Amino acid sequence: MAVARAQAALRDGADFDVVLATSYENVAYLSGAFIITQRSIPDRLGAVVIPREGPPAMVVCNIEESLARRDSRIADIRTYVEFEMSPVEAIASVLREKGLERATIGFEARVLTAHYFEELKSRLPHANLRPADAFLNGLRMIKTEDEIALLERAALATDRTIRSAFESSGPGTPEKAVADAMAGGLQQNGADALAFLVLAAGPSAGIVHAAAQNRALERGDLLRCDIGGYFSGYYSDLARTAVVGRAAPQQRDIYRRLWEVHDEVIGQARPGVHAKDLFFACDQAFKRRGMEVSLPHIGHSLGIGLHEHPVLHPFNDTVLREGMVLAIEPVYRTDGAIYHVEDLVAVTASGPRVLSRSADWSDLVVAG
Amino acid sequence: MAVARAQAALRDGADFDVVLATSYENVAYLSGAFIITQRSIPDRLGAVVIPREGPPAMVVCNIEESLARRDSRIADIRTYVEFEMSPVEAIASVLREKGLERATIGFEARVLTAHYFEELKSRLPHANLRPADAFLNGLRMIKTEDEIALLERAALATDRTIRSAFESSGPGTPEKAVADAMAGGLQQNGADALAFLVLAAGPSAGIVHAAAQNRALERGDLLRCDIGGYFSGYYSDLARTAVVGRAAPQQRDIYRRLWEVHDEVIGQARPGVHAKDLFFACDQAFKRRGMEVSLPHIGHSLGIGLHEHPVLHPFNDTVLREGMVLAIEPVYRTDGAIYHVEDLVAVTASGPRVLSRSADWSDLVVAG
Repeated sequence: MAVARAQAALRDGADFDVVLATSYENVAYLSGAFIITQRSIPDRLGAVVIPREGPPAMVVCNIEESLARRDSRIADIRTYVEFEMSPVEAIASVLREKGLERATIGFEARVLTAHYFEELKSRLPHANLRPADAFLNGLRMIKTEDEIALLERAALATDRTIRSAFESSGPGTPEKAVADAMAGGLQQNGADALAFLVLAAGPSAGIVHAAAQNRALERGDLLRCDIGGYFSGYYSDLARTAVVGRAAPQQRDIYRRLWEVHDEVIGQARPGVHAKDLFFACDQAFKRRGMEVSLPHIGHSLGIGLHEHPVLHPFNDTVLREGMVLAIEPVYRTDGAIYHVEDLVAVTASGPRVLSRSADWSDLVVAG
Repeated sequence: MAVARAQAALRDGADFDVVLATSYENVAYLSGAFIITQRSIPDRLGAVVIPREGPPAMVVCNIEESLARRDSRIADIRTYVEFEMSPVEAIASVLREKGLERATIGFEARVLTAHYFEELKSRLPHANLRPADAFLNGLRMIKTEDEIALLERAALATDRTIRSAFESSGPGTPEKAVADAMAGGLQQNGADALAFLVLAAGPSAGIVHAAAQNRALERGDLLRCDIGGYFSGYYSDLARTAVVGRAAPQQRDIYRRLWEVHDEVIGQARPGVHAKDLFFACDQAFKRRGMEVSLPHIGHSLGIGLHEHPVLHPFNDTVLREGMVLAIEPVYRTDGAIYHVEDLVAVTASGPRVLSRSADWSDLVVAG
């Protein structure tokens, strides 16, 4: 269980007497309760308090109490009434009650807002508040077999959805209809909900995070998507690029080279390699083909969060380990168009295992 | 234009020399560029800097540059390369360049994280950083006619979607199928994407933010949804309650009383009334019917954000004004079940105007 692992890590030399998780992702991971309003209404804080020794506690708005009591593995649930009591007051009470008002408290400095941070400092003036983002996010880096199975199911469902939407599109299909087919198909294929959908074609082919426009696809358009769904609280996240009606030789060639780069990078996803090495491998693979990396990272882990650690960027020294899952996504930008492929890969003792291919994507797919 | 209004407000006695917007909502509102990754990848900061006098500037990650250049009304766009340069370094440069390193800088204390806040303080040690949440969110409180027309279109599309999904459901329909019909229908009816979907029935009827379960609807189940979509960057948000197969007299009676309460509160949504007065009107209307308010607020405004200001809670002194739009949503909880209705209401000089009813919901709807 996640709380026990957190406590073991705290006893194993971490610099904190207690950690305070306030992100949607870490509260969900540590407690088992997925409180969606932590994402949509961030003022309405939810929190998990884990001391080095002794029982953890959870703090939620009373609106979420019934959900927390049904789903949380943490028995001690405290509530506050929004607008009547500050969530930080409830958190500070728990910490004082546990005798931790002078402790070193690890908190999520990249999540907790300045407002709540200042309030926490003033309510616990003798505490030593220190960022624990790396500690808490580190707990989620290695996935269990169950998590990998869920992520694989989600990835395959998403891949099938994309392929099917591409196959039923062609010249004349409105961009919005392609988007609707993907969103609807994703739910039909098992997603609880769509998380995000980038759909770019024609004039918006050069916009990284474009939305479907009110426009019909034209022969020769690049058609690119980056789509994610929620599956039992976990993300899928896949990008695919196709062409509408007919592929020009140059389009096929760019795509072929991008796919070779993609394959090379995936081949490097092995235990012991540094996260940044995958970025450099990608950079080199592009350069050998007369191309270059277009974005500041070439992938990230995936789970309850969208960009989980490790992120594959040139400054990340994290060592890859068995049980990590990586969304590897080289992007190539040329002449106002973007080619983008993304697959989910598990790092295993025997090498990378691609989790996300329901079909062959190695040649540029022609829609319609 | 939003920037001009912000500058007029700054000149009209606001306490800031410059404001720094970093929330997805305020960056979108002030610039016109909707950068969805500000929601999904909050570390990747986007910002708008508005001095009291002189041109504003926008700061985005280079990944979003093409979108910002296409959509932003702010001409001066600065970029940073993620992981290579901190977004706060880019923001601090802009402020220094404008001679504002010793200025009173209004920032979003309820949005900017502690990590970035501390970095901003250390990069601008002589600046006076003060929360400007109320100032910035206040700019979005009064909607234009175009915004109200968009919100009305979104609300009606959402209402039609819910009604249609209820009408095609009945005893034996899997909860997930109802959710899929709603999500798919919302896209078909014009949403760019689903934003959230609460679907509660039977055993989960008492959970405020429940998700559809793997379970078939049974005769007599309460069936409740709270659904929102994105329409050209603006939210819809409606809640409806029905019953499956056959309504018990007690269910009809509770619903009828809830609807009367709802109607009474909507009737109070007039210019000059305080936000908290709507909460108290709701409280009194419930009490006269032997019921009571179940949640800490009974509604909120809606726009680019989900819970916009004013929120209708007992401590909110904001005076309602013409052009505000309110999602009014009384909730009644009894015996483990929750009844919830929510409508979107525009505050006009001649009284409240309901924007969200495509059909009659005044009697408890029977699904199937």
